[in-house]
Formats: sequence, structure tokens, C-alpha cells
Amino acid sequence: MVMKVHGSVLSPPVLRVFAALCEKDLEFEFVFVEVKAGEHKKEPFLALNVSLRPCPPLPFGQVPAFEDGDLKLFESRAVTQHIAHVFADEGTPLICEGKSMATVGVWMEVEAQQFEPLALKLRREFLYKPRSGVATDAAVVEESEAKLAKVLDVYEARLSQSKYLGCDCFTLADLHPLPTMTTLMGTPVRKLFDARPKLSAWLADISARPAWAKVLAMRNQQ
Amino acid sequence: MVMKVHGSVLSPPVLRVFAALCEKDLEFEFVFVEVKAGEHKKEPFLALNVSLRPCPPLPFGQVPAFEDGDLKLFESRAVTQHIAHVFADEGTPLICEGKSMATVGVWMEVEAQQFEPLALKLRREFLYKPRSGVATDAAVVEESEAKLAKVLDVYEARLSQSKYLGCDCFTLADLHPLPTMTTLMGTPVRKLFDARPKLSAWLADISARPAWAKVLAMRNQQ
Repeated sequence: MVMKVHGSVLSPPVLRVFAALCEKDLEFEFVFVEVKAGEHKKEPFLALNVSLRPCPPLPFGQVPAFEDGDLKLFESRAVTQHIAHVFADEGTPLICEGKSMATVGVWMEVEAQQFEPLALKLRREFLYKPRSGVATDAAVVEESEAKLAKVLDVYEARLSQSKYLGCDCFTLADLHPLPTMTTLMGTPVRKLFDARPKLSAWLADISARPAWAKVLAMRNQQ
Repeated sequence: MVMKVHGSVLSPPVLRVFAALCEKDLEFEFVFVEVKAGEHKKEPFLALNVSLRPCPPLPFGQVPAFEDGDLKLFESRAVTQHIAHVFADEGTPLICEGKSMATVGVWMEVEAQQFEPLALKLRREFLYKPRSGVATDAAVVEESEAKLAKVLDVYEARLSQSKYLGCDCFTLADLHPLPTMTTLMGTPVRKLFDARPKLSAWLADISARPAWAKVLAMRNQQ
């Protein structure tokens, strides 16, 4: 049975799962879920299995949902780790062994705990609010950009010592921030990346991966 | 060389690492770092290795730091996962194999993404602010408690189907929220737990684990 990803291509966490599947060169089915008007937070989507295309449980009303046979998952980073471990011998490894994996784990946490919350705040200010006709809050932008700059300084220092974040090869530590960073490239936040040469070179490198090109092609077809 | 945990017993992430080490019945050294006055965010702590007790890098100025020989880690959840994988055959397993591990992963993400941010907001309102002589913000409390109640409903539903969060045995999915939940038990947020019988029974169960009793004893000795 082919794996299914339920969600919208507008969601960075959905693209995160796509990226892991494409790095592994795995077939999967994408089941579109309307998220524009908060559709995925309403019944029948939340109550599930009532729509024409049944969707696994999303207890927090956030896409993606993922199905691998009878296994139903949510939370994108749990899904990518499942894919990386179960398909360890296919495509790009994405994880590594022993002590190196501990450092990959650290940088996965840095993305989830330090980078993403600030990135999402800025994405909201620069993308969602204007789309909804709401003014961008300059004070929120200023505070979030200042905090994000400090986080990106840590990335810059790490990438001055190591080709990739977790170790010397591409892993989930690099893949996890890619979708949100790509989104930020279309906003004024880009300047924070442009000012950091190691970070910019790493982002250009991982953005040029064939698997990511496939993800962007899927996104643009929708 | 004995493993070292650098931090303060006032920090739930530090207690999270203690709990993993105690579940594995591993020896470790605790290196106290003064965090009360934001000491750990200042030089020489940030610049490291300048203090009498050298501490590994803490690029975000947040404890714990962890040392296992020449391996230096930060981010508590990365440390607990390292401990669980490297000492897989000792003490409590904390992780499991195959599909069950995917679900453990989902519930580790739920803690990190859904529970902890709200819990920390409430901890700040009920514990940090009063300690600093700052008034608790009733609006923040009301909003955060309403959101946390919904998250705890999801825990309650899960624990109605499964003895533990990730699978039918105690894993990192249960261990990760335990320190912050314990802290909240001493605040008015406790009512949200008391109102949910499955959640309360699970929390009483995991709070009674001998490893957690050891952690609390260490905390109380400091």
C-alpha cells in the first residue's frame, strides 16, 4: 500500500515530509487538504474519515497527516524520522550512527526549538498578514529579526566548522529547516541570510538538491 | 570517564536529562551552574572553559550542557535520545523498535511542540514573575490555560487508549513532559490535570517511578 501525505503544499511541515520521501526516492500519494480558510481545523476534517478522502487523525488540527499502511502519524518531524529509520538503506541516509547521530539530534532540536518559532513569527508578519489585508507589525518584526539574527549567528559558526549541520553529510538536521528557510527567502528576512556567507552557501547547496527540486515542482503544480 | 551534566536543578530540561540517566541507572556528575541571575547567559559561561569548572558550549545560553567523554551536547531532548540509544541495553529501554517507535516519536513531538511552550508560559506567570515581584498577567494565564486545556484533552484521549503515551511501556514520550508537569503541580494549573482522570492516573504512575524519586532527591539536596 502506497504511503499517503495529507496536507497542503502551502505548509512547510508538509514540504518537510515530501523532502524526506523524495530524498529516499519513495513513491507516495499526496492528498490535498484545504487549509486556506482553516478548513483543516473544522469538522469533518478533525473528526476524520467523514470526508470523501479519509484522513488520519490530526488531534491538533495541523497538517501533515501521514499514513504508512495501518500506521497513522502526525507531527512532521516524527514522520521524517520514521521515514529515515524504516528506509535506512534507501536513497540518502538522512541519519547516521553513534556519536554523530547525537550531534544530528542536537541540530534537529536547534531547528525545532530555536529557529522555527522565530521563523514562523516572521513568516506570519511578512506573508500571512499582508495576504489577509492586515498590517505587518514593525515592533514584532524588529524583535523577532534581532532574535533570529543571534540564532543564525550560531548556525554560521557551526557551518564554519562543519559542511552540514549534524555531521559532514546531509541529514535530517539540514532537511528540517529547509522548507521554512525557503519561504523566508521571499521576504525581507533574506537579508539576515545574505549577511552570513557560510549559512548562505549551505542553504544554496541544500536548496540545489534534486530531491528538493522535485518538492518545489510538486508545490508549483498545485 | 564519567558523564557530566552542567546546569541547575531549577531547570526542567536539566531534570529531564537526570531522569533519563537515572532510568538507565548510570553514574554521572552534576556540575552546578548558577542560573538565578541569568549567570549562565553571561561571560565566562557563554565563552566557556574560563570558569573553575569548565562547561561545554551552550550557544543559546540555556542549560543543560552534557559531556560524554569528548562528545559535548546541548538541547535536553537530544541528550535523552543519545542516552536512550547508546545505553539501549541498560535499565529502562525508553525507546522501542519499528512502528511503535514512530508513535513514540509523535508523542515526543507533541510534548516539544504543543505542551511545553504553553506550560512554560504558565510557569513564568505563576512561578517566575511572583519570585521577581512582578504581577501575574491574568489575560496571559486565561489564554494559555484555555489552549493548554485543549492539549491536555488530546493527552486524555490518548491515555484512554494506551497505558503510556508512545506505546504500552514507559518511554521518552512519557519522560520528556514529566519535569515541567511536576513543576505545574505546584501552581493553579494543577486543576487542569485534576479534571482529567486518565491524565492524572498516568502522571501519578510516572511520578512514582524510582528513577524520578532519585531525581527529586537530587533536586531537593541542592
